[in-house]
Amino acid sequence: MKFSLRPQDNAFYDFFSRAAQNLVRGTELLSELALPGADVQSVSERLSEVEHDSDQITHELYTKINSTFITPFDREDIYDLGSGLDDVMDHIEAVGNFVYLYGLTKLPALPREMHELVDVLDQQARLTAAAMPRLKGMKGMKEYWVEINRLENEGDRAHRMLLVRLFSGEYDALTVLKMKEVADELEAACDAFEHVANTVETISVKES
Amino acid sequence: MKFSLRPQDNAFYDFFSRAAQNLVRGTELLSELALPGADVQSVSERLSEVEHDSDQITHELYTKINSTFITPFDREDIYDLGSGLDDVMDHIEAVGNFVYLYGLTKLPALPREMHELVDVLDQQARLTAAAMPRLKGMKGMKEYWVEINRLENEGDRAHRMLLVRLFSGEYDALTVLKMKEVADELEAACDAFEHVANTVETISVKES
Amino acid sequence: MKFSLRPQDNAFYDFFSRAAQNLVRGTELLSELALPGADVQSVSERLSEVEHDSDQITHELYTKINSTFITPFDREDIYDLGSGLDDVMDHIEAVGNFVYLYGLTKLPALPREMHELVDVLDQQARLTAAAMPRLKGMKGMKEYWVEINRLENEGDRAHRMLLVRLFSGEYDALTVLKMKEVADELEAACDAFEHVANTVETISVKES
Repeated sequence: MKFSLRPQDNAFYDFFSRAAQNLVRGTELLSELALPGADVQSVSERLSEVEHDSDQITHELYTKINSTFITPFDREDIYDLGSGLDDVMDHIEAVGNFVYLYGLTKLPALPREMHELVDVLDQQARLTAAAMPRLKGMKGMKEYWVEINRLENEGDRAHRMLLVRLFSGEYDALTVLKMKEVADELEAACDAFEHVANTVETISVKES
Repeated sequence: MKFSLRPQDNAFYDFFSRAAQNLVRGTELLSELALPGADVQSVSERLSEVEHDSDQITHELYTKINSTFITPFDREDIYDLGSGLDDVMDHIEAVGNFVYLYGLTKLPALPREMHELVDVLDQQARLTAAAMPRLKGMKGMKEYWVEINRLENEGDRAHRMLLVRLFSGEYDALTVLKMKEVADELEAACDAFEHVANTVETISVKES
Repeated sequence: MKFSLRPQDNAFYDFFSRAAQNLVRGTELLSELALPGADVQSVSERLSEVEHDSDQITHELYTKINSTFITPFDREDIYDLGSGLDDVMDHIEAVGNFVYLYGLTKLPALPREMHELVDVLDQQARLTAAAMPRLKGMKGMKEYWVEINRLENEGDRAHRMLLVRLFSGEYDALTVLKMKEVADELEAACDAFEHVANTVETISVKES
């Protein structure tokens, strides 16, 4: 049995894992939202609940930082990681809220590039949820952040092609503005996943 | 009489207090701008003066950091706090400038949600100005950042409802684009106040 | 001959110099892009190559940080500077890509304010490329960051006047949206140059 000098570590890893699992719930709801005939109001409300859970986890994490003498890594990095995971959720929730509030599901179908972006987010969420428990030991983290960055590039490309389509004349100006708002939040969520991965990389550099 | 090992502290707290008081002047000018029949050019010019004052304070703060051996808290955090307060002002000044340059006051009235956002900013400015002198001693800071975060949520909700209204068909496309620019700067100012509060929270965690 | 306790320094200064020289190549391509009759597809492809080079330099820098025991300044600041220079390139590349993808060169001419923004970026790139080799020794850095900030203000003003023109009714709504996307990336590149200068200022404060 390995003896640990840092008995408080596990609580922190737990917060990160729970926050990341919550993001998987979030991207699953986005996938549901993108299906034809989705009950947008219900999905949007469930996204708000998941976002509320994330706020709760972040709040507990901050309280824990304040009450813990020895933390597994720098307090600022724990903050960054916690608030980074929370940022992803804020963007995911905003997508659901905008799709609902703007009545975008009255369109016959959402553009293909939006589905691609939702799919990228779902992959990023699963990778992040799989990586968080491995923070303890820092094993196999490089694969995680390399892949998150690759997916962010893919998301960025999908976002650009989505804008090309939106500006092509296929939709009226107000519909373009509404969908651009959703498109930008989807891309911001991709970026926020990358920011989380960059924070993990920073922590890993300090630990090594 | 209490003896202080940190004789230079007061100068720093002074900079933060002056910068925050300047933000109150800024949000007061925004409130004036939102009144029917406001002299938009005059308000916009006064906002530019207030923003110039902020730049001056930030510049003096940076010079002070460079010439001071012992600072009351980490140099980077002093930078972050100074530049964070300066960022808020940049967004506030941009609002005034856009309203003036785009001729938005030719509209019969600005949407109600814009007034709500200006009101949120005014409350955030007053809370921040009241909190800065308390940095020395770090008393009652938690109430400050909790309330700033609550107001940021309120501002975010007002911003979303403002976009719903802008995209509703009530205005022509160019007016929508102009007002969206103003709306986004108002929300960015709310976010920037939250960023200041987060920096204060980070400092407080390190000090505790 | 001066003896150095930090034999690894030069490698880092080299990365920053190469990354900044790459930005000069990037802004030169933007200037070429803005000329009437430019081969937009070719310029956009060359911008993507330059951006790929930047990614490569950033990747090598990160590997170097990980394998170096003593770094010339804080690891986090080296990261910040490297990723800051990379961010500038991302925005520059996006400009080229958007101009190409949106077919904006079918317009008789790009607005004058866009040329001004490209010119500001070109000046910022040259100043940054001249400053990076001076990081070793930190001589004459203040002039660099003061001038970058002045240029950022100039860019910001050009961006605002560009939006005024875009929203004036001179162009149809979809063209406005396309050009606004380009305008925002140009301004984001100006900001990113300022962020690099701020990082240099932070490093310089710590070193002094």
